Amino acid sequence: MSKSKLPVTPVQACSAAPLAREPLTGEAAVELASVFRALSDPVRLRLLSAIASRTGQEACVCDLSEGIDVSQPTISHHLKVLREAGLLDSERRASWVYYRVVPEALQRLSDVLLVESGAAAGVNA
Amino acid sequence: MSKSKLPVTPVQACSAAPLAREPLTGEAAVELASVFRALSDPVRLRLLSAIASRTGQEACVCDLSEGIDVSQPTISHHLKVLREAGLLDSERRASWVYYRVVPEALQRLSDVLLVESGAAAGVNA
Repeated sequence: MSKSKLPVTPVQACSAAPLAREPLTGEAAVELASVFRALSDPVRLRLLSAIASRTGQEACVCDLSEGIDVSQPTISHHLKVLREAGLLDSERRASWVYYRVVPEALQRLSDVLLVESGAAAGVNA
Repeated sequence: MSKSKLPVTPVQACSAAPLAREPLTGEAAVELASVFRALSDPVRLRLLSAIASRTGQEACVCDLSEGIDVSQPTISHHLKVLREAGLLDSERRASWVYYRVVPEALQRLSDVLLVESGAAAGVNA
């Protein structure tokens, strides 16, 4: 399973300093953009949410087509993109692949987007 | 100043329930994906970060080309995409347009990505 054409940097590798702390460097911006690109597709977001909202934040690939009207190969492709971005982890058990959320990766992305409300208060007053 | 070809839903309009709370609906996923798409470009991330890291989280468009090696029209295009996604607000003062971060929009996106570490702990044990 080689990398897809887009260079994707797993979010674990991102420096992931909050956007508001200091201006992003070019390199950090490229890394971070590749992770947001993984989240910029509705089917990928639905798959990630379907997995994240399950008990244990884990799902068999065989259960993930419910209510998502795309083919199994398409689902597998999107799961691979999320995995390569470091947002999902996968494990084969017998005939099936199980995917689970990487909570640290989502936490880092969430932290990147935080702005201090104190700093913003002056702007919006 | 018509909308660009991509349908962009401002993040304010997103229901923005955390991904882990319940599976995203198709409609919510389309809305959210359009906002992440606005963040999936390195130049846009650098511009957003350059604005967010300034005092008052505001910047004149005339100050935003520092260190970002793209033309002024390209910068203006990217700022427009961020504004249409609801992540930036803009205001004209005399000859210049000023952009500022919409902290509530970034906060909502940040919240969307939060997963409960408790739920994840069992998976990663």
